[in-house]
Amino acid sequence: MLSKQMLYNLENSSAIRKMFIEGQEMAARVGAENVFDFSLGNPVAPVPESFTNALIDLIKSEDSLSLHGYMNNAGYPEVRQAVADHLNRRFDLELTFENIIMTVGAAGAINIVFKAILDVEDDVVVFRPYFGEYRSYVSNWHGRIVEVDPQIPSFQPDLSDFERKIDGRTKAVIINNPVNPSGVIYSEDTLRSIAAILEKKQQEYRHEIYLIADEPYRELAYDGAEVPYVTKFYPNTFVAYSFSKTLSIPGERIGYLVVPPKMTKWQEMANAVSVANRVCGYINAPSLLQKAVARCLEEKCDIAFYDRNRKLLYNALTEMGFECVKPEGTFYLFMKSPEENEHNFVARAKEHNLILVSGSTFAMPGYVRIAYCVSPDMIQRSLPRFRELAAEYHL
Amino acid sequence: MLSKQMLYNLENSSAIRKMFIEGQEMAARVGAENVFDFSLGNPVAPVPESFTNALIDLIKSEDSLSLHGYMNNAGYPEVRQAVADHLNRRFDLELTFENIIMTVGAAGAINIVFKAILDVEDDVVVFRPYFGEYRSYVSNWHGRIVEVDPQIPSFQPDLSDFERKIDGRTKAVIINNPVNPSGVIYSEDTLRSIAAILEKKQQEYRHEIYLIADEPYRELAYDGAEVPYVTKFYPNTFVAYSFSKTLSIPGERIGYLVVPPKMTKWQEMANAVSVANRVCGYINAPSLLQKAVARCLEEKCDIAFYDRNRKLLYNALTEMGFECVKPEGTFYLFMKSPEENEHNFVARAKEHNLILVSGSTFAMPGYVRIAYCVSPDMIQRSLPRFRELAAEYHL
Repeated sequence: MLSKQMLYNLENSSAIRKMFIEGQEMAARVGAENVFDFSLGNPVAPVPESFTNALIDLIKSEDSLSLHGYMNNAGYPEVRQAVADHLNRRFDLELTFENIIMTVGAAGAINIVFKAILDVEDDVVVFRPYFGEYRSYVSNWHGRIVEVDPQIPSFQPDLSDFERKIDGRTKAVIINNPVNPSGVIYSEDTLRSIAAILEKKQQEYRHEIYLIADEPYRELAYDGAEVPYVTKFYPNTFVAYSFSKTLSIPGERIGYLVVPPKMTKWQEMANAVSVANRVCGYINAPSLLQKAVARCLEEKCDIAFYDRNRKLLYNALTEMGFECVKPEGTFYLFMKSPEENEHNFVARAKEHNLILVSGSTFAMPGYVRIAYCVSPDMIQRSLPRFRELAAEYHL
Repeated sequence: MLSKQMLYNLENSSAIRKMFIEGQEMAARVGAENVFDFSLGNPVAPVPESFTNALIDLIKSEDSLSLHGYMNNAGYPEVRQAVADHLNRRFDLELTFENIIMTVGAAGAINIVFKAILDVEDDVVVFRPYFGEYRSYVSNWHGRIVEVDPQIPSFQPDLSDFERKIDGRTKAVIINNPVNPSGVIYSEDTLRSIAAILEKKQQEYRHEIYLIADEPYRELAYDGAEVPYVTKFYPNTFVAYSFSKTLSIPGERIGYLVVPPKMTKWQEMANAVSVANRVCGYINAPSLLQKAVARCLEEKCDIAFYDRNRKLLYNALTEMGFECVKPEGTFYLFMKSPEENEHNFVARAKEHNLILVSGSTFAMPGYVRIAYCVSPDMIQRSLPRFRELAAEYHL
């Protein structure tokens, strides 16, 4: 009854769903206040007031037919120009509205790129640990995932492994910076090295290898850390951006794709991804939301909120003896499991009402992901439970 | 550089884009008021005020984090329940929220169904003339389109041809009712016959054959015409619905999919399409819009507006001697080209500043589509031009 593809997706997605359902069941049993659910990446920093005001003003002042109507599949030209201007100002680029395609979130942006470039059995290279949904997005278009190892403990990519993994079938490489789930930021050195390897491989195999920079966590960088803008180092780079985390509006599905002017035949590609937006069934990014985010490009939710959580949790856990990758961005903390099989550790954590996600979900067994986009109060109340857990493992 | 699939889509989509661009260029040359663009299905009846009020009230009264936040990939349970209640009341059904998946428009709904059911080289049967985007949606999932002929001049499907075209590879059948582009409504008799043939074929080939009822034009039915609800006749029916035309909000990408309780293993299927919503990159239907349409389920834009256009144009064109299918629904009129090659006719119409769409776009050469979702004033001003054209063809 179901397609083979769908059966694969259902199998793949069962791990996280199982976790979520278990947390819900536990909450029903022992009370929500006694469950410490660190599983989901759901933003909790308040939505900026300017976004709410922008929505109301647009609805009250604009003609409703054009506010909610069809536009070019790539989005409203003036919205695209506003995004281009914003990026030019911040990152010293030379974009126009034609380089920007408004999308149904970053997930929509990545899928239209794959639609445009992937033939059956083309390879897409990803860096472990990585967001598990990439597997689905690649399999939608019948591509194949190729995994590159990280350096431990820095969690920067192992560049010699990267170089080994690229061959004539490689069509694209995804970097997610800052990284979900590790929380690290790939440095300018790392990105320049990736670019140099790709340039060499493009020449060797005589076809484009596209870099897809997936950047929903771009604004969530702490201690003044820089997240370099990758199109500067490598012309064949797509940038997929989402406002979900920046403005705390993940349900609205609004983002954009950058097709930079130095990409090979960029106009043809910009046209292709714009047609892909339509034929993939997205048609266009939601119209009201396009206009609303265009008015809030300089806005951010309260990043300091997540930063406080980060310090609180990182300091407490490392003090207890847990080993954590030092998180520089995102709202995730990637912790080494005190026993090799992290599924056992996740199960024991659950006995203390702590809901964590196993690293295997991110192709990185032996680790767990802790999402600290939660109330500081819940983190405080969870610490005694983590302490009990540390004691069980004699840390 | 571009995938084979994408090259196919670009080739396929060039006809309509070319038409649109030509209309724009003509408007720049001779003034927009002298161009009679009947090419696009862009709603122009005013957005109901209650929809605007619902948006403002939601934004002002609801907590912004939950209003714009993640929910289940299938949508907010209370929104899904409201849709179920509405459909139960109107069509005497027995749906609960679990039978409703909120989607990114009807296009999103159709794509998640295909994702869930289509294996490579499965057949999808469509009835000529049909909405050309079905070709893209089927090719996204590597299925193949199989076309069934219409009866002329009624434009009801040729049911013996339908029966002949179904074989062991048939996984799904799409009906679009009322039909874009012909404007006809498939009668209850037709639908019961389609159901009976499918029941027989399911038994013969021992697997499910799904009917996908694509119903964005459901509310656009005139002279009290009924659009039967297909799940009553055939249990393995998905219904894809969009609010784009009903509320004149096509840019917002909001609709839903019905997985009826009599479908084989409906719960498994409802879960699969809900996961498909996520893995296809839609994630969920836009959150604010979900809540807004839930408050406007009984609302419609001013259908009488389109009805007046329909009568005005149909009466005038048939009086001039053109042959038109009698339109019962949608906002399209399907007219026989006075010469066999309708591309020539479209070109001659353009010399009179009339922008029409060739029937070949809908797999129906020899006809043209005229979208009358335009101002009545433009229709009035276009009539002398149609009259000139009729004279050229000695009608």
